Amino acid sequence: MTTVKLAVVFYTTYGTNHQIATIAAQAAKDAGAEVRLLRVAETAPQEVVNGQEAWKAQLDKMSDIPVVTPDDMDWANAYFFSAPTRYGVVASQMRGFIDTLGPLWQEGKLANKPVTATTSAQNAHGGQEATLLSLYTTFMHWGAVLVPPGYTDSVIFEAGGNPYGYSHTQGDLFDKAEPAIAHQARRLVEFAGKIAA
Amino acid sequence: MTTVKLAVVFYTTYGTNHQIATIAAQAAKDAGAEVRLLRVAETAPQEVVNGQEAWKAQLDKMSDIPVVTPDDMDWANAYFFSAPTRYGVVASQMRGFIDTLGPLWQEGKLANKPVTATTSAQNAHGGQEATLLSLYTTFMHWGAVLVPPGYTDSVIFEAGGNPYGYSHTQGDLFDKAEPAIAHQARRLVEFAGKIAA
Amino acid sequence: MTTVKLAVVFYTTYGTNHQIATIAAQAAKDAGAEVRLLRVAETAPQEVVNGQEAWKAQLDKMSDIPVVTPDDMDWANAYFFSAPTRYGVVASQMRGFIDTLGPLWQEGKLANKPVTATTSAQNAHGGQEATLLSLYTTFMHWGAVLVPPGYTDSVIFEAGGNPYGYSHTQGDLFDKAEPAIAHQARRLVEFAGKIAA
Amino acid sequence: MTTVKLAVVFYTTYGTNHQIATIAAQAAKDAGAEVRLLRVAETAPQEVVNGQEAWKAQLDKMSDIPVVTPDDMDWANAYFFSAPTRYGVVASQMRGFIDTLGPLWQEGKLANKPVTATTSAQNAHGGQEATLLSLYTTFMHWGAVLVPPGYTDSVIFEAGGNPYGYSHTQGDLFDKAEPAIAHQARRLVEFAGKIAA
Repeated sequence: MTTVKLAVVFYTTYGTNHQIATIAAQAAKDAGAEVRLLRVAETAPQEVVNGQEAWKAQLDKMSDIPVVTPDDMDWANAYFFSAPTRYGVVASQMRGFIDTLGPLWQEGKLANKPVTATTSAQNAHGGQEATLLSLYTTFMHWGAVLVPPGYTDSVIFEAGGNPYGYSHTQGDLFDKAEPAIAHQARRLVEFAGKIAA
Repeated sequence: MTTVKLAVVFYTTYGTNHQIATIAAQAAKDAGAEVRLLRVAETAPQEVVNGQEAWKAQLDKMSDIPVVTPDDMDWANAYFFSAPTRYGVVASQMRGFIDTLGPLWQEGKLANKPVTATTSAQNAHGGQEATLLSLYTTFMHWGAVLVPPGYTDSVIFEAGGNPYGYSHTQGDLFDKAEPAIAHQARRLVEFAGKIAA
Repeated sequence: MTTVKLAVVFYTTYGTNHQIATIAAQAAKDAGAEVRLLRVAETAPQEVVNGQEAWKAQLDKMSDIPVVTPDDMDWANAYFFSAPTRYGVVASQMRGFIDTLGPLWQEGKLANKPVTATTSAQNAHGGQEATLLSLYTTFMHWGAVLVPPGYTDSVIFEAGGNPYGYSHTQGDLFDKAEPAIAHQARRLVEFAGKIAA
Repeated sequence: MTTVKLAVVFYTTYGTNHQIATIAAQAAKDAGAEVRLLRVAETAPQEVVNGQEAWKAQLDKMSDIPVVTPDDMDWANAYFFSAPTRYGVVASQMRGFIDTLGPLWQEGKLANKPVTATTSAQNAHGGQEATLLSLYTTFMHWGAVLVPPGYTDSVIFEAGGNPYGYSHTQGDLFDKAEPAIAHQARRLVEFAGKIAA
């Protein structure tokens, strides 16, 4: 199998999507992929971040995680995205990063690569589906190959049954989520291996 | 206030959306609207329906409820829709009815009327958002005025927090749903009264 | 390469999506796939069809094309869909067919198969994007691998630049469309070959 | 009629959405609304902007237009949005602004207000529908009343027939667009007047 080079790209404010991304990265490594765990740069003004202790603490906690660059997107032959919703669309920090990919996109360097996505929201139906569908719409512009999990494993049902990707409701525990996230990541690696072959 | 004439249009297989529609119709009446509770015709072959006792029983139960016609759509100055998901889009029975509205649409008789929608699914994230967004996309073609509930009342949070409309997960009880459905219906009537004025 | 078995599934009223499907089927054959060109059953009442000469003529013209069945969906390891929009969602005839796939879906027989889609509309922006996104949402429920074309070839720009799939505006000629449709079909076959390997 | 207070909120890089917003603002004024024409702050790094002469020139040209603030959103009782697509979602500058509205949203100050949207893209089908639908999804979270134009006037057909809102393809002239944009703005004002009454 050709080596799968997976970029796990996440944005988080308080840590939920960091946790999702960490689980995905580990599962992908275990499945044989070369993995880069990468965070999207914070774009909120420093004083806003500092005004919320939990936000600042999370940023400090991630100081060792590299900020994703277009070079990482070029390097990877598969993508795993994770970011919280903001009114049915992914957080603007993630959109800001996506908007910098124009040159790479024009060279076709985002094309033909498999991708999957996860998200989180405050409410059970508070944009968890809409946010993932919105991300996939963007990936279609890239010429990506979309690998949402569907209902390809029973663990998905136990984690809320989101066929577009795992989605986390604030306050949920991660015990039922972990197998669903790991399945989604492993399945992506499997398809990426075939496509890169 | 000009009379609000509300068509509550639903499709159901096993009864969930019948129950939602009944709650909505009652709340709208209580808010002063003239209401027609209307079901979409079953299009599945008779032998398929007969092969599932619960499906047949539900059809029998609704024999007194009139089947919606284009005339009802012309009569109404507001719409409340309810139908279950089928893979992120509303059941084909509802789509079949919608597809018969071409002549009415061309005459502009669906335009400028407020509308809201509710749905149901097997899984918590199994198309509950996607189905409502898909319905609203269709209503935009009509020139409708869309009145999703957002988070305009705390009862919405308690019913799962779907800002696009109430959505029911199979197995849930209706105690927390009822206030959310009633709020959504009353709010529609309120806007319909202003718009029709 | 493992044989790609492609089901080209279309619904048409007046012939546009028949034409798209025919071009796709030929391109896929040329790329080495085993192809079944299949139409979705008409569900409009016979008297409605008979009342419109162009509709009836198209149905007569397709009498030799087999009607798609769940068995075809089981047989195939890749799908190419084509159907016109109805207010931003695919025609109810196609939704009706999709709604019969429950048993196959529950057995997981729609999962892990690559799929792409095309559509048509009366207006340039009259649901051409929304209809394809709605179809892909459904395919995500199946656990499908989505292969929209993106901008992976310059012929896509010349055909209107729809990254979700080729979409036809009523009245357009097919000269610029043909290369875009063929590219979309060939690319699907290529990925299907890798995934089935 | 209660005074309609309309915020026309736009983001532009090279000027297209500035032009759309200007037309909308004028039409709304002519229809009797009090109008604020407001631009979203640029968030791209100064050196990136300076590196593209057309971008910098447009920013200079707008120096007299106030940057939108949450206070403007609170003041208004109707919203007209315009911003270009980035891969099927509105530009991240607009998402960045939207993400600052959390406090206002929590107080319910965005709720019950009518809203409509327009966009632009490089290709005829390059996200023109998807971007508007994505914006409307966000507005649903606010509890907004959505007023997309549908096909409520023949000028919409002439401008490309986008029922979700006017959308501009790069290179198009504005002669056919102007009546469609003006109609969309006037219709919003009309509904806003009724709703605010």
